[in-house]
Amino acid sequence: MELPATLSDAETAQLDAHWRALNYLSACQLYLRDNPLLREPLRAEHIKPRLLGHWGSAPGLGLIYTHLNRAVRRHDLEAMCVWGPGHGAPAVLAGAWLEGTYGELEPGRSRDAEGMLGLFRDFSQPGGLPSHTAPDVPGSIQEGGELGYSLAHAYGAAFDNPRLLVCAVVGDGEAETGPLAAAWHSGKFLDPAHDGAVLPVLHLNGYKIANPTLLARVPEDELDALLRGYGYDPLHVTARPDTPHEETHRALAAAFDVAVERIRRAQREARARTTEPGPSGARPGAAPETDPEADPYAEPGPAHRPRWPLLVLRTPKGWTGPAQVDGVPVENTWRSHQVPLSGVREDPEHLRQLEEWLRSYRPDELFDAEGRPTGQALACVPEGGRRLGAVPHANGGRLLRELPLPELEPHAVKTDGHGQTMHEPTRVLGEMLTELFRATRRRRDFRLFGPDETASNHLDGTFDATPRGWQAHILDTDEHLGRHGRVLEVLSEHMCQGWLEGYVLTGRHGLFASYEAFAHIVASMAGQHVKWLQSSREVAWRRPLASLNYLLTSHAWRQDHNGFSHQDPGFIDHIMNKSPQVVRVYLPPDANTLLCVADHALRTRDTVNVVVAGKQPCFDWLSLDEARGHCARGLGVWEWAGTEERGGEPDVVLACAGDVPTQETLAAAALLREHLPGLAVRVVNVVDIARLMPRSEHPHGLPDAEFDAVFTRDKPVIFAYHGYPWLVHRLTYRRAVHGSLHVRGYKEMGSTTTPFDMVVRNDMDRYRLVMDVIDRTPGLSVRATGVRQAMEDVRTRHHSWVREHGTDLPEVAEWSWSATSR
Amino acid sequence: MELPATLSDAETAQLDAHWRALNYLSACQLYLRDNPLLREPLRAEHIKPRLLGHWGSAPGLGLIYTHLNRAVRRHDLEAMCVWGPGHGAPAVLAGAWLEGTYGELEPGRSRDAEGMLGLFRDFSQPGGLPSHTAPDVPGSIQEGGELGYSLAHAYGAAFDNPRLLVCAVVGDGEAETGPLAAAWHSGKFLDPAHDGAVLPVLHLNGYKIANPTLLARVPEDELDALLRGYGYDPLHVTARPDTPHEETHRALAAAFDVAVERIRRAQREARARTTEPGPSGARPGAAPETDPEADPYAEPGPAHRPRWPLLVLRTPKGWTGPAQVDGVPVENTWRSHQVPLSGVREDPEHLRQLEEWLRSYRPDELFDAEGRPTGQALACVPEGGRRLGAVPHANGGRLLRELPLPELEPHAVKTDGHGQTMHEPTRVLGEMLTELFRATRRRRDFRLFGPDETASNHLDGTFDATPRGWQAHILDTDEHLGRHGRVLEVLSEHMCQGWLEGYVLTGRHGLFASYEAFAHIVASMAGQHVKWLQSSREVAWRRPLASLNYLLTSHAWRQDHNGFSHQDPGFIDHIMNKSPQVVRVYLPPDANTLLCVADHALRTRDTVNVVVAGKQPCFDWLSLDEARGHCARGLGVWEWAGTEERGGEPDVVLACAGDVPTQETLAAAALLREHLPGLAVRVVNVVDIARLMPRSEHPHGLPDAEFDAVFTRDKPVIFAYHGYPWLVHRLTYRRAVHGSLHVRGYKEMGSTTTPFDMVVRNDMDRYRLVMDVIDRTPGLSVRATGVRQAMEDVRTRHHSWVREHGTDLPEVAEWSWSATSR
Repeated sequence: MELPATLSDAETAQLDAHWRALNYLSACQLYLRDNPLLREPLRAEHIKPRLLGHWGSAPGLGLIYTHLNRAVRRHDLEAMCVWGPGHGAPAVLAGAWLEGTYGELEPGRSRDAEGMLGLFRDFSQPGGLPSHTAPDVPGSIQEGGELGYSLAHAYGAAFDNPRLLVCAVVGDGEAETGPLAAAWHSGKFLDPAHDGAVLPVLHLNGYKIANPTLLARVPEDELDALLRGYGYDPLHVTARPDTPHEETHRALAAAFDVAVERIRRAQREARARTTEPGPSGARPGAAPETDPEADPYAEPGPAHRPRWPLLVLRTPKGWTGPAQVDGVPVENTWRSHQVPLSGVREDPEHLRQLEEWLRSYRPDELFDAEGRPTGQALACVPEGGRRLGAVPHANGGRLLRELPLPELEPHAVKTDGHGQTMHEPTRVLGEMLTELFRATRRRRDFRLFGPDETASNHLDGTFDATPRGWQAHILDTDEHLGRHGRVLEVLSEHMCQGWLEGYVLTGRHGLFASYEAFAHIVASMAGQHVKWLQSSREVAWRRPLASLNYLLTSHAWRQDHNGFSHQDPGFIDHIMNKSPQVVRVYLPPDANTLLCVADHALRTRDTVNVVVAGKQPCFDWLSLDEARGHCARGLGVWEWAGTEERGGEPDVVLACAGDVPTQETLAAAALLREHLPGLAVRVVNVVDIARLMPRSEHPHGLPDAEFDAVFTRDKPVIFAYHGYPWLVHRLTYRRAVHGSLHVRGYKEMGSTTTPFDMVVRNDMDRYRLVMDVIDRTPGLSVRATGVRQAMEDVRTRHHSWVREHGTDLPEVAEWSWSATSR
Repeated sequence: MELPATLSDAETAQLDAHWRALNYLSACQLYLRDNPLLREPLRAEHIKPRLLGHWGSAPGLGLIYTHLNRAVRRHDLEAMCVWGPGHGAPAVLAGAWLEGTYGELEPGRSRDAEGMLGLFRDFSQPGGLPSHTAPDVPGSIQEGGELGYSLAHAYGAAFDNPRLLVCAVVGDGEAETGPLAAAWHSGKFLDPAHDGAVLPVLHLNGYKIANPTLLARVPEDELDALLRGYGYDPLHVTARPDTPHEETHRALAAAFDVAVERIRRAQREARARTTEPGPSGARPGAAPETDPEADPYAEPGPAHRPRWPLLVLRTPKGWTGPAQVDGVPVENTWRSHQVPLSGVREDPEHLRQLEEWLRSYRPDELFDAEGRPTGQALACVPEGGRRLGAVPHANGGRLLRELPLPELEPHAVKTDGHGQTMHEPTRVLGEMLTELFRATRRRRDFRLFGPDETASNHLDGTFDATPRGWQAHILDTDEHLGRHGRVLEVLSEHMCQGWLEGYVLTGRHGLFASYEAFAHIVASMAGQHVKWLQSSREVAWRRPLASLNYLLTSHAWRQDHNGFSHQDPGFIDHIMNKSPQVVRVYLPPDANTLLCVADHALRTRDTVNVVVAGKQPCFDWLSLDEARGHCARGLGVWEWAGTEERGGEPDVVLACAGDVPTQETLAAAALLREHLPGLAVRVVNVVDIARLMPRSEHPHGLPDAEFDAVFTRDKPVIFAYHGYPWLVHRLTYRRAVHGSLHVRGYKEMGSTTTPFDMVVRNDMDRYRLVMDVIDRTPGLSVRATGVRQAMEDVRTRHHSWVREHGTDLPEVAEWSWSATSR
């Protein structure tokens, strides 16, 4: 590809000075604990005792930092950068220090010799700066440790930020991961009218830790076809070890110019087609009178999807570092991945080579006597908030606004007593979200993400307010697809999660709704986000973000035709292992509690909220007011469901958490009331499972005295729990009552079967719970033996009935609390 | 693309009869509980009361089943098929029943009206057949529930199976997932000389549950570029609702013929270049004398990687089903995803439409009066073991051979007392694996998979026996890359896991070595594999498979420069939630125990073994003989490390599991011996953590009496555990001693820091353990108060030392058991 040569020699020299400064600062972070400006000859005592860190990708990232700076100034861009490559922190830290943002955020990082030395010393030191981009790194929204999510983060950042350009640097190591491979398709969800742009830079430096990378070793035409197939129009810039740096600067500057121009043209065209945001931008001639809300954006036909530009930048790994060490090639091989020169304190030749390497950047030209960068080194740096380390989007809490959350009353289920009616909880939530979508129609700072399951999860009411965003072909037979929709569906949990992370990290709000079992697909991403939030709490200048919200539905207990593979409640366990400051798990038992929990979750900051709720019809246990009180407490006694006298202690506690366990528990309570009327039964429902933990271990933990008041200290507690039963044991093992606690839950006894057969298989059914009560409550009358046998008999009857009829026993299928409670 | 018309009219009619039979059988599985052959008019009582199942992808999968059959016969192929699309089971079950394999495997599936009806009745019924391919489905190695892994499974199946062709049907829904998007690159790891072939069939039926699919809606040239970019040479076959079926049969048959011919040519060429398997196939002119073992396969230069063929098959979703229902389009829309006609028992028009639909396949021509398929319907079916439901590879246990596992003695660390020397456990294991690679040089039924970390994980000794397999360009500067290597590295845990699954599911052995924290990336895949194995146990004809083995190393405690993002020991928790029949977790404390554990794991069948072991130098605690005994018991008292009298009970138990916890525990024991010599301390080490569980909950669980004999019933137990401490509580909460158990472990207090600072931050350091002992042991002398203060003082000293020096306290860094034990 021919690129116009746009750079003057003077500007080239300025860019090169900035880049050399970044390279110098990057290399010094690995090595120096003194003599930061090399004002004296380098000696062993200037070198850190432990050499830790990564050089390999730093020069390439520095080059991108430099040229993105130039593009921001030249094109007056509002731009941020997502730094994908692992261990890229030295270059990004160098950039933030050099442009002054680091010093403005952290007092110890002043733009002088002292701040420079502090940076060098803290890098890869105990408790110091990690070698991948992390919350400590100004301008970053990306943990560079795990690899795979940069591109999805970048698109999440770009959604609903029409003025923003997000540069996404994708390393060729990261590019081998599945999540990254899928995320290239994100362009088919980017609305050029309302969203910003993503400019991916595929940075091929050729090597991972110890191997070449795939994409660097396939023929260039094959790579080009791949990227065109993903929907991009690639611009290739290649630097080899012997390519003059000026040549690379010219080629890369021109490529950025071409890319920015193409992006602007695509946006101009798309925005001209869309006269204003929102429904009024709908195609003239649509027929609103037939279905005014359902599909206001429909625009069947081929997409006007731009072929977005993409840069393929090939630079040698460890470029400008030592070409050879001890006779072995290092630059442009995997050997430059970490510290190219080792044993520098002990080996005078290595020390000499290090000094030669560092001086090759001519630090004297880059920094004055006090260590302040020279004008030449700073010429390409943008002003103020346009600096990459100062872009507010990369510290999204600065832009965060409270959501205009709807009143719950109009959406709440009207109840008349407990368990008299049934509703689908997620459908009720969907109505509330619909209003939220309407309320954010112009702000566009709330989105719903999911893997092709919004309708399946009964959240399709939201399509009344906004369709699914879709930039590919739309057919006349399609429903609820539109160019500007804020529900995004793709059959990749990784993309959904990555987009949502990018969206909230840049100061917006959202929800990821998924089949419960498949949340595990993003377990690792969720864990990394928790770590990001936990680490951010220790970074003073990071502002609180909207929480990351999961709605897990289509849960383990109701997989009537999907069976065993769709049954896994263990995401809760995974989350509950993580930092208690960050993690929250809610198990609302009905529609109104789900509304309250969702309302709460959308107001929280800097947490990861996991809400598990069913989509199938579920008894309405609580009025909205009761639900509010119950959710505020997080757990509580449902006095109306038990049989104890006020003020006394019960004989037994039936506890439950989750919608199906709650139903079985209430049915068991009804059976006990009928068959063992003298037994004082207390029913406890738990919404916020962290309440079970000691206060010392989780901020939501209930103080012991309050816990004991609810659960007693020594009465039998039969606990029906939504997930793996041992989680309840692990949360409560320090409680007085723990020795009397008996938990039922999902224990991997799954199949394609009926709802009630699922609870029977896992010993969590109402009859089993009654048997548990009888087995564990001392001093029951002889009558109890007969009751126990009757329960056993129903279970036996169930087994033959379900085999014969394929349905549940009529007495179970038709059961309701209202019928039993007279 | 032009394709030759190779089919005669007679053969076309035969193929169409087979396909119609599959469609008929698929549709009937959703609806019928009687009148299987439609010998009488369809009535409401013939219809199942609950209509569950999925029709959408069945006709397309049936078409592929038919044509793969034809290709097997025509080209004398040894072929199997991996069925990727979700909910594809009806078509595959139909195929297996029709060809007779199902009836041979399961008595109730005879190839007559009775067997047919049994299939219809059991489908999607409680405890019956799921609607995605599962272990119940003959010929399948693929759980069709989660989506994303078919292509990786197919490549795993093809590795080292040079005669096998694996057809991989990839649904366009599945194709949106990350793991699938990455797995297209698997061709760059497929050795055409020693591996079989994978023929992907990208099946675009246009829709997921409720949405169009991405790949079906991008322009065809864009899709074609994408697939070429992935390294394939696509053949496109497109059927629209009005395309005559004969035309599609001709086009698809021709496409299969072209694909098979191209595969054979590529294999012939590659195999001609490689005169025989193994090192002797090395490039003439290599210089073995310089380094005979290290790189015997090196063949620098561009790859002779074939452009493998790939079929893009477009068929309408729900093809041949009802075009419209109640005036709404169903065929060729997402509405055909599940049951196209609902309420059939109640709605006479739907019943009529169902009958018309089913009769459109002309069942009278396909089945005789007894329900046996006619010759016409069976004409394309291969013989015997070539039938897709009978291929032995798809029931891999039939092909499994015992591994020639090396003797451990030559690889074991020679010890002279306890803790006198140090070794890197994974490096020691690597030597054993090297011999295993040598011993399987010709059999080629063992492989090591990992994400670019074999060297980083100190397993690079294996390269002495076999290089990393690589079919892309090789440079002169590369090391340990070769065309025929059996170590496969790609920076995608999903691909590593998927390949290994496919490899073991087809009857071979392997190991996946990964950074511990990043095992979570494949948590969901691991869970699905456990479910597959658990379900397989209930399928009589499934033969035991080699276990799926994980080596998790570079673990949480030693992430000196990677820090917080690389610290997550929770994969153990995830695995321990799953079916106890299947899951095993081992925490060998040193090199010799790791050898024993690995040897054991490689001998087991049908389990998932998670082995967590460090790569850093670690004290050699046990001789090989001691390690053997210790591993056989799974846990045990280390008498040499404690101070109790024989036969008595100790005052306190120090327990540990994992290499770092063991070191801290032994250091604590040494401190106690020195400072509180009167205290009777018992040291217990746990290798197999399921031993902690009750026997009733895990087959490895230790009976209570034995457990109590080791841990006591009431003495304080201070347990230093590798992972999240609460796991130990959850495993032991039923044990007598549980109330006295105090567990230390990783509690998310991570950073970039020194090894000892990590244990201090998480309160698992030796000094803290001694303090725990003092705090929890009643009746200690006043001297203990002083000792406690001394411990506290060292911890304080540590904090300032590490901040100042960036290294650990000398007394910790230089500590050894041998020095303390005189």
